[in-house]
Amino acid sequence: MFSGLSAFPLTPMNEDRIDEAAFVGLLERLNAAGVDSIGALGSTGSYAYLTREERARVAKIAVEHAGNTPVIVGIGALRTRDVLNLADDAQKAGASGLLLAPMSYQKLNDEEVFQHFKAVSAAISVPLCVYDNPGTTHFHFSDELHGRIAELPNVASIKIPGVPNDPQEAKARVERLRAQIPSHVSIGVSGDAFAATGLSTGCDVWYSVIAGLFPNTALELTRAAQSGNHALAQQFSSRLQDLWDMFGRHNGSLRCIAAGAEILNLVDSPCLPLPLVSVQGEDRTRLARLIEQLELS
Amino acid sequence: MFSGLSAFPLTPMNEDRIDEAAFVGLLERLNAAGVDSIGALGSTGSYAYLTREERARVAKIAVEHAGNTPVIVGIGALRTRDVLNLADDAQKAGASGLLLAPMSYQKLNDEEVFQHFKAVSAAISVPLCVYDNPGTTHFHFSDELHGRIAELPNVASIKIPGVPNDPQEAKARVERLRAQIPSHVSIGVSGDAFAATGLSTGCDVWYSVIAGLFPNTALELTRAAQSGNHALAQQFSSRLQDLWDMFGRHNGSLRCIAAGAEILNLVDSPCLPLPLVSVQGEDRTRLARLIEQLELS
Repeated sequence: MFSGLSAFPLTPMNEDRIDEAAFVGLLERLNAAGVDSIGALGSTGSYAYLTREERARVAKIAVEHAGNTPVIVGIGALRTRDVLNLADDAQKAGASGLLLAPMSYQKLNDEEVFQHFKAVSAAISVPLCVYDNPGTTHFHFSDELHGRIAELPNVASIKIPGVPNDPQEAKARVERLRAQIPSHVSIGVSGDAFAATGLSTGCDVWYSVIAGLFPNTALELTRAAQSGNHALAQQFSSRLQDLWDMFGRHNGSLRCIAAGAEILNLVDSPCLPLPLVSVQGEDRTRLARLIEQLELS
Repeated sequence: MFSGLSAFPLTPMNEDRIDEAAFVGLLERLNAAGVDSIGALGSTGSYAYLTREERARVAKIAVEHAGNTPVIVGIGALRTRDVLNLADDAQKAGASGLLLAPMSYQKLNDEEVFQHFKAVSAAISVPLCVYDNPGTTHFHFSDELHGRIAELPNVASIKIPGVPNDPQEAKARVERLRAQIPSHVSIGVSGDAFAATGLSTGCDVWYSVIAGLFPNTALELTRAAQSGNHALAQQFSSRLQDLWDMFGRHNGSLRCIAAGAEILNLVDSPCLPLPLVSVQGEDRTRLARLIEQLELS
């Protein structure tokens, strides 16, 4: 489950409710394309913006419509109490794995984060992926802390943010982390622009935002990397440079991917929870053109 | 309400429930001391860690036990939908004012924050304080954005983080903000170590963490500053330098103030929501000594 391509779909919603029909459509797209796993309620799935009840419902729908594809469910919350409840709900819904980011309001220290993961890992019965995303959590993992957490029961993967652009530096970075963690724990790269580099320098899995909307495009890159053709994977990535640049201009991928889903009428517009707003204006027009020209699918 | 000393008490809790009796004790302490307002469910009140139902209950208790002291209630949440509900609940509970921080998971842009405040300011009927706290929200207000928001209906105050240590720079910083906002909107300083400097350089109010536990100590400083005796206010602040240093060592004031309340048996221990843990070890012993030596009350 924690290898190859893991696709993170949007959770389409409006101010009143989750758009369940549109969510099912996204899931069926991923299942048909043959991604290796589906990451429901990741950052792209706006887990942090939903109630416990809504998250339980989304987890259930994801599992029901994923076919044979394993579903990883995001269980992050500010409070340990709430994470334990969310883990329970996700497991009852049939999640094959769980994804946990150390969300913060008060800045957390290493020991608090370790104890948080320890409490959760002791309470669950499916594999856990440690979600390292300083851009949203504002917590910076040291490799030493990753090592301590990776020894906990049920920990099976670490989702790291982007790797350095330079392949040598990227390789060194992944090797440093690999040296701290048990061999059964996989390392996954996120930050889609870094996928080709990450997969060529020791990452086992790509936790992918674009795969949630364009699974075939992401699979093409992943399969090239998995077959050892890293130059081809890099070519596929370079083709998408305009998309990576757009992510850079809009505080990350979410508002762009939401606009993409809206443009393709796969979801109603708007599909993000306020105050978040999908990309509008010139970049929206540019995105529509990119989807067509690059045949993103 | 948005002038003088505003005291922000802890919301004591454990993993099961809010400790209502202890919370009432803290409120009565503030009321007896004669603070100018009480800020319930601020960052110190762990608003971000509680459910809607718990927050409605805390707001109700705060108003019921504040005597004649006006109560400002924190209504921040990641989602505009939830903030509107929380504003409703707080007003029904009898809040005299509301406090809103632009909490974020996905990094927000200026227009999203403006529209968020616009939606809330249009839906409320009591004054609103804009809560600028980049340390927890990771959103950085420009003075220009403060100016736009300060023009919205019901906006009555801005709670800024610390001012520069240098009095000239602090004065310039407050004057720059003052020039952007209407005269009926007050400016309040937070970051307790900066209170004396802030109050001597144009801030109208001190939004204070220590006042939530040591209201008399904070009032002494505030009244000196209000009477124009800024040298004395600065002396009072310098006396507390060991406390400010301790805040610096523990990612801010919360874990220290929680330890202080635990040491004084005003709350059960632990009183913070996991994963947050109050100060332990040597600094806890040091804090107990400081409370005694400095006669903090």
